[in-house]
Amino acid sequence: MTMLNKKKDEYIIIVGCGRLGGSIANLLSKEGKSIVVIDKNESAFTKLSDDFSGFTLEANAIELDTLLRAKIDKADVVVVATDDDNTNIMIAQIAKIIYKVPRVITRLYEPAREEVYKNLNIDTICPTNLSALEFKNIIINNGEKVEK
Amino acid sequence: MTMLNKKKDEYIIIVGCGRLGGSIANLLSKEGKSIVVIDKNESAFTKLSDDFSGFTLEANAIELDTLLRAKIDKADVVVVATDDDNTNIMIAQIAKIIYKVPRVITRLYEPAREEVYKNLNIDTICPTNLSALEFKNIIINNGEKVEK
Repeated sequence: MTMLNKKKDEYIIIVGCGRLGGSIANLLSKEGKSIVVIDKNESAFTKLSDDFSGFTLEANAIELDTLLRAKIDKADVVVVATDDDNTNIMIAQIAKIIYKVPRVITRLYEPAREEVYKNLNIDTICPTNLSALEFKNIIINNGEKVEK
Repeated sequence: MTMLNKKKDEYIIIVGCGRLGGSIANLLSKEGKSIVVIDKNESAFTKLSDDFSGFTLEANAIELDTLLRAKIDKADVVVVATDDDNTNIMIAQIAKIIYKVPRVITRLYEPAREEVYKNLNIDTICPTNLSALEFKNIIINNGEKVEK
């Protein structure tokens, strides 16, 4: 992996290229962001769109060496979106506490753990809660779906 | 299962009491809606909060008899939120086409199928897309998370 040094751009690392990680990578790539996506399975990268302009790194993000190779010390944002809460919290903590990444945003399966993240100043997004609220909004407000 | 006949209230059937279905049931119960939640596994109902005021029906919603027992012909809203897109589309179609349920809202894993639902006037919510947009919003707009 080679990396351009664009000081003015935000440099974003996305850990996990599942449905969610891949979708985030595609959306941010369209916005012209500098992105590295990490996944331990190369096949996961097929979710990236043809015009995805970032880099991919096939490696296990639980290993510190992987995060170093992804230049976590230079990252402005780390998005943690694997399908395992324990993995996510570990990587989010490493990014925030050890590498002082300014923004760390984590997928959260189990809302009960939200407090742990809050104390670390790590943003969390719980797809289940977000979606449940959207269902409720459609039903209660008879509203049009805002999702594109 | 017994059912109160509240003509003025919206009667809502929720199919699938996983994380998402359970969360929707709890949110709508708090709003005072009349709800029946269907799941084939009784253990799924443990996700319902202690003050959940609706009914539960332990049965396979793919069987028409189950939907009849849930009084689908009286439903104002059917929420379909199992973890399988094929199951969801089948139940959504039955609700919309056969029982003319006014509002059918379905969880969608695979956004590529959205067109099928649109043609049937069935609302869809794709948790992955919704969450990816929320991640993007936080990163691009540096915005505060709107999710509660």
